[in-house]
Amino acid sequence: MEPWELTATAARTMLADGSLTAEALTHSCLERCAEREAVTKAFSYLDPLLAVRNARRVDKAYAKGVLHGLPLGVKDMIDTADMPTSHNSPIYDGLQQGRDAACVGIARGEGAVVFGKTDTVEFAAAGRRALTRNPHDPSRTPGGSSSGSAAAVADGMVPLAFGTQTGGSTIRPASFCGVYGMKPTHGVVNSEGAKRYSHTLDTIGWYGRAPGDLRLVAEAFRLFGVETPVTKGLKQLRIGVCRGPNWQVASLECCEALGTAAKRLEAAGVTMEEVTLPAPFDEITAAQLVVLHGEGRGGFLQEYLAAPGLLHRDFHERVENAKGITPQQMLWAYDLAAECRKLFDALFPGLDAVLTPAAVGEAPVGRQDTGNPVFNSMWTLLHVPCIGIPCIKGPNGMPVGVQIVGPRFGDAALLDVAAAVAPVIDAG
Amino acid sequence: MEPWELTATAARTMLADGSLTAEALTHSCLERCAEREAVTKAFSYLDPLLAVRNARRVDKAYAKGVLHGLPLGVKDMIDTADMPTSHNSPIYDGLQQGRDAACVGIARGEGAVVFGKTDTVEFAAAGRRALTRNPHDPSRTPGGSSSGSAAAVADGMVPLAFGTQTGGSTIRPASFCGVYGMKPTHGVVNSEGAKRYSHTLDTIGWYGRAPGDLRLVAEAFRLFGVETPVTKGLKQLRIGVCRGPNWQVASLECCEALGTAAKRLEAAGVTMEEVTLPAPFDEITAAQLVVLHGEGRGGFLQEYLAAPGLLHRDFHERVENAKGITPQQMLWAYDLAAECRKLFDALFPGLDAVLTPAAVGEAPVGRQDTGNPVFNSMWTLLHVPCIGIPCIKGPNGMPVGVQIVGPRFGDAALLDVAAAVAPVIDAG
Repeated sequence: MEPWELTATAARTMLADGSLTAEALTHSCLERCAEREAVTKAFSYLDPLLAVRNARRVDKAYAKGVLHGLPLGVKDMIDTADMPTSHNSPIYDGLQQGRDAACVGIARGEGAVVFGKTDTVEFAAAGRRALTRNPHDPSRTPGGSSSGSAAAVADGMVPLAFGTQTGGSTIRPASFCGVYGMKPTHGVVNSEGAKRYSHTLDTIGWYGRAPGDLRLVAEAFRLFGVETPVTKGLKQLRIGVCRGPNWQVASLECCEALGTAAKRLEAAGVTMEEVTLPAPFDEITAAQLVVLHGEGRGGFLQEYLAAPGLLHRDFHERVENAKGITPQQMLWAYDLAAECRKLFDALFPGLDAVLTPAAVGEAPVGRQDTGNPVFNSMWTLLHVPCIGIPCIKGPNGMPVGVQIVGPRFGDAALLDVAAAVAPVIDAG
Repeated sequence: MEPWELTATAARTMLADGSLTAEALTHSCLERCAEREAVTKAFSYLDPLLAVRNARRVDKAYAKGVLHGLPLGVKDMIDTADMPTSHNSPIYDGLQQGRDAACVGIARGEGAVVFGKTDTVEFAAAGRRALTRNPHDPSRTPGGSSSGSAAAVADGMVPLAFGTQTGGSTIRPASFCGVYGMKPTHGVVNSEGAKRYSHTLDTIGWYGRAPGDLRLVAEAFRLFGVETPVTKGLKQLRIGVCRGPNWQVASLECCEALGTAAKRLEAAGVTMEEVTLPAPFDEITAAQLVVLHGEGRGGFLQEYLAAPGLLHRDFHERVENAKGITPQQMLWAYDLAAECRKLFDALFPGLDAVLTPAAVGEAPVGRQDTGNPVFNSMWTLLHVPCIGIPCIKGPNGMPVGVQIVGPRFGDAALLDVAAAVAPVIDAG
């Protein structure tokens, strides 16, 4: 087994006992990139010499942090002090910031090897797509906007990568690429230094190849309670199956993934029950769009004024409020979200988690359509933690995942649940 | 009258008709700085050549934006592409970012002359204080954390400056320094590129020397409805006087300011009424502190890991959760805030604005105590727009202001009210 094939958790054990160095792991990842990158195009910036330099710095560190020696891909709308941050925008081509974004600085502080910048949809929002292809089928999208991050982890180029989620930009690509993904509770990870689209929605997320990988990153961010993992017995778990208000757009393979995950869990002894969300949730998807477009007005005004000719039409529409969002609609959306957050949290601790679709179906063909975020956007607005888990293969052999969702600040408990249920769900 | 004495509104008229250039106004402001800065110490970075270069660039512009030619001070925890951003932290001394913060980029896009960086409390949060002194009495604080911004505008060094408010960091210094200040609805001004302390609370604000000055900046940010000012007749206005849940800490001069403002308005024909906030507001000040400290955990983790020895003890306490904030407390605070937001908004349109204290009293003596934010922090958590208006002189001859507050997204209407009531309130 080559080092690049290791999960973050497995690599960390070897890095801790000295049987692997950060530099050796980084070299192995670079070799994998050399083999795959021409097809996958996960990276918008990758300087092998810099990646190795970052690894050597980690190998010299006085202490080993929780991410010690693990190569990390960083979505290219998150600032890095040692690499350009282009936002996939011609306005910021080659932009060099002086400071790491908070999440990058924290990961570096915990020993991560900042490896390269992963391609993204323009400003993680709209406009230009990433060049990235799905490692399982290069004729298909890896999803977006965290296109390169999900693909790089799926393709063995890095064990960990940062994404972001404003609609469905972390969990949907995880499903399309067959990797694990986590969107934590909104606000618990400092989003400073990542491009802002919507302050109510923007959330830093991350990818790994096992539930334990996701926990390592959560430990770096010191999420409430994450320092004391609790082993959950499957027979003690009660999980709600939630089709949610958008079930009518689920593809056959999406229905199959949810059904298969539920059946596998039930067979393993988990108590499963149907969850029907109360009436206010019928409008929660619409509310997310109001917040997205309403807050997006101010999100791109800077670029609109500075370089309108270099800014995709999608962003002109945001700034000019093409959808005609009103303050009244914004207040309606904010207040509905506040109500639904309380209603959803009240399902716990009666349940340990909610199981729900992660994406409408398999990854679409082509590069333009990065997939429908409708099974993600409501959870983003609810601010609740979500973990994406691979489940089945669809009719075209593409991965289709599911996600488990917990209450706000239930990140640590949700990681415990993921550790228990992932081997059952991801058993294809 | 020297150009530096002009309000932004008056200067803008002359800049528009060509009777004043951005360069001439900038030179005049620099002369004022040369005279006053040794005492006031408003700026942490001021390069006269760069300020003039920025002014000349504006004088050459093809079109005149809404802030055309107006020198602007920028709080030194807000990124600027052409000046260092130190955050008043030894960690970031001389830090050069590659990109303007959103608010700076927008102001520049609308023709503002980025003039210099104003001193701030460390990370606009705690720890080191600014060196800035109150222009009305250099033995006293200008307030904080937007110390240099409020003082620079009060002292005639710049007509406009950006601050931020997480507790009371914009409106309190406005009161202490006798200038106008605005904290808009949370989230309507993109806070990208400003140091993050608390994502629920951090709000970009600004200072001017007249209500119209505040409107210019609001126009630059395209706040909902601000493009169509409405002249309000004083006799048509109904304003609620709100002592709020912290009245017991008001000084005599604070009580006098509120009483004087109310009496002046009543004498001018405004319908005044007492507003008593319902029971949930009794805990809103405590909720703000929970959010502040709970979210502050992640706010400084990056610096804590990178350079603990250069980080003030205050921030170690935040990261280490010295206050022992729990997720349950966070949820209580978030949900209480959501409830109180709806309750407060429901006062409108029955009222046109709420009149309430802006600070506990006069500016304290010394540099360490920047004043109590207790009359500001609840409004920050409520996300509502606030405008600080000078009112009386206290027993030591120091300015004491009041503030008017509107419902969420009522920024434009609140500016209309300010235009009508400020000449009455600020008539000392």
